[in-house]
Amino acid sequence: MTILDIIEKKRDKQELSKQEIEYFIKGYTEGTIADYQAAALVMAIFINGMTKEETTNLTLAMANSGEILDVLGVFGDRPKKHPKIIVDKHSTGGVGDKVSLILLPLVASCGVPVAKMSGRGLGFTGGTVDKLESIPGYKTGIDINSFIQNVENIGISMISQTLNLAPADKKIYALRDSISCVESIPLIASSIMSKKIASGANKIVLDVTVGSGAFMKDIEQASKLAKAMIEIGELANRETVCVLTNMDEPLGYAVGNTLEIKEAVEALKGNMPEDVKQVVLELGAHMIKLAKVTDNIEDAKEILIQKIENGEAFNKFVELVENQGGDTSYLTDLDKFEKAKYIEPVYSQKSGYIQKINAETIGKLACSLGAGRIRKEDKIDMAVGIILNKKVGNYVEKGDCLGYIHTNNENTLEEAKQTLLKTIKIEEQEKEPIKTILKTIS
Amino acid sequence: MTILDIIEKKRDKQELSKQEIEYFIKGYTEGTIADYQAAALVMAIFINGMTKEETTNLTLAMANSGEILDVLGVFGDRPKKHPKIIVDKHSTGGVGDKVSLILLPLVASCGVPVAKMSGRGLGFTGGTVDKLESIPGYKTGIDINSFIQNVENIGISMISQTLNLAPADKKIYALRDSISCVESIPLIASSIMSKKIASGANKIVLDVTVGSGAFMKDIEQASKLAKAMIEIGELANRETVCVLTNMDEPLGYAVGNTLEIKEAVEALKGNMPEDVKQVVLELGAHMIKLAKVTDNIEDAKEILIQKIENGEAFNKFVELVENQGGDTSYLTDLDKFEKAKYIEPVYSQKSGYIQKINAETIGKLACSLGAGRIRKEDKIDMAVGIILNKKVGNYVEKGDCLGYIHTNNENTLEEAKQTLLKTIKIEEQEKEPIKTILKTIS
Repeated sequence: MTILDIIEKKRDKQELSKQEIEYFIKGYTEGTIADYQAAALVMAIFINGMTKEETTNLTLAMANSGEILDVLGVFGDRPKKHPKIIVDKHSTGGVGDKVSLILLPLVASCGVPVAKMSGRGLGFTGGTVDKLESIPGYKTGIDINSFIQNVENIGISMISQTLNLAPADKKIYALRDSISCVESIPLIASSIMSKKIASGANKIVLDVTVGSGAFMKDIEQASKLAKAMIEIGELANRETVCVLTNMDEPLGYAVGNTLEIKEAVEALKGNMPEDVKQVVLELGAHMIKLAKVTDNIEDAKEILIQKIENGEAFNKFVELVENQGGDTSYLTDLDKFEKAKYIEPVYSQKSGYIQKINAETIGKLACSLGAGRIRKEDKIDMAVGIILNKKVGNYVEKGDCLGYIHTNNENTLEEAKQTLLKTIKIEEQEKEPIKTILKTIS
Repeated sequence: MTILDIIEKKRDKQELSKQEIEYFIKGYTEGTIADYQAAALVMAIFINGMTKEETTNLTLAMANSGEILDVLGVFGDRPKKHPKIIVDKHSTGGVGDKVSLILLPLVASCGVPVAKMSGRGLGFTGGTVDKLESIPGYKTGIDINSFIQNVENIGISMISQTLNLAPADKKIYALRDSISCVESIPLIASSIMSKKIASGANKIVLDVTVGSGAFMKDIEQASKLAKAMIEIGELANRETVCVLTNMDEPLGYAVGNTLEIKEAVEALKGNMPEDVKQVVLELGAHMIKLAKVTDNIEDAKEILIQKIENGEAFNKFVELVENQGGDTSYLTDLDKFEKAKYIEPVYSQKSGYIQKINAETIGKLACSLGAGRIRKEDKIDMAVGIILNKKVGNYVEKGDCLGYIHTNNENTLEEAKQTLLKTIKIEEQEKEPIKTILKTIS
């Protein structure tokens, strides 16, 4: 077997065997296969596609290319305090997406262990780790033993990705970016699933975002991606559920690190924006169903609502923050969080119904204020961002406040206000609110 | 314009513009476009193809990527001794292919200027430059001014490629080899044509070889390649004729550098094997017709036969060798050429008709004896090779001599004899001789 034979096969639309895919991933990770050879193969995969068996073998080979977090294996040596099921959750990314911050303590409060490694934000989408770090003292970079110890002690830990998970995926992802091979269903699906499998999950719930602020721009493409990931899950023995959610407007009202933490804490106390609530309940119901807390989705949602109403979800979040060194006094007194120097309202210049709030534009605006990174090495300003006052479908009078710009740089203020005004489209005709949950595929 | 846009367009089966192709060739030649980006684009071209306009623009961009030999431009400043037409000839490669050595002096003897840069052999096919160097004293590495001066003085010069012709083609060719993207009609066609255009031809005759000893294994593929090159010629204003010739058995009887020079000299003296004669006359007739010596192919063949019979073709070859420093006494006394230490006959072990003499096997056998290079830096043994005694279709008795192994290494002898015996297939049923000229396309 040589890489030339493998490239030739895929070039000629033939199916690659497990051995051939493993040969490629091993060689490319170790550097014996050159970038230009990988580039030729990736382009052939992009154009000629992959069967579900090939996609699964690619996923498993990438998952096995680095360290593997074996939470269950570690649990196995200790008293069986937790069920032998690790449910993981992943989102394909969005603007104002604070779902993990609410959902994971909520699920943990139902007795389902949560061992979550999250990423940082890059480009116009934020990252859970950055948001957690806006809580003073919260340590995201703890070692793996403490991480698992935390999960065992209190049922939840949320940290940054400290292990070298799926390095082949990292290398291929960077390559795809530089050869116009990003938008390929088998390549996206295997990239996401390889990281989930490497991080130890045996049940997976995926939030596949769709719309202007998401990677998938329409339901057809998103459904294809969802089906590809479910097929990988089936073949790789990791039960997988995909929830397609709308990302045409930002999720909730807050965009920015501290601003989103505050919205998440409010949500855990029961004050959840309707769209956030729908996503949290839908994803959460599938997570606790997969973890066998109940076998009925409607019952599951009831359980989750109860855990919020009786304060257990919020308490679990406080426990998590305390356990990771964070100052919990901020959670009970949200005013303690540092605020941006300039908090400026933006007023509507006409009356009518809000037709559109472009999520991508809002994400990029928050990023330009300092809430996100353009390059990996950029520093984040925790306090800045945008608070929206309205959602698509709301009626506003001329002069009503549409939202607030939070910034530490006076110079950015005027342009930011203009951008926000321009991206909130208002017309006379009525407009239905956006349907948040588009489809659930399992 | 970025390379990412260009890759994406070809990935999505769209046609690239002249500007986009030039951008790629310039960037890749200069190194601002990386190998992995070129690899992705080349794979997309391999799978999705190119229109004739794209193929032509690729050809011209590669031709213009380095030095250009402008023979006509140089002639333009001098007395018009020669017509303003430069006809070039190229073969896609074969075993025992000594056609250039016979054809070019012959054509020059008709008053058509020949300014020929040839390549060295690599793999199982030989190179004209290596063969010329088996004549003691013959200089193939002369400078371009002397080269053109020679063409002006005596109407012919044959040298090795001393200019940096079409470096983009060299780079892309090497890349294709390492990413399984060799067998693509637009890529092969543009590679050949770019070198011909860079070497200054305005009329081109191509010998497209077909069969076991050639790159194109069947007539359909060879016809496609021929048509692609003719289309490029049309669009690039270089009239092009393709002759498809059979390369299932070696051409003529001799395979090896000195052995082929001797066969070529004999041919110029009028003793031409039938298959060599057909190729020489067909290619030669089209060359002198393109050069407007005559407008009729049958007349052209008559002229060529006359030039051989009256000795002018041989005299032109002697003039060429003398002019480039070669010892012409070898041409009048072929016994002066150094012979291999061991010249061993191979006898037939059965009676019957010869069904097949695999050209590729013979080429590789000659190469293993030392007549060719496996790597670029290998040294060549001029004297060694194979002399066949028979052609496909001949009847042989058991014990008849089938041919001779010429080698300087006694250890290789027995295996070489066995290989030769095995590759000459003899059966009882009669067999037609191989048709040499398969098709002429213009």
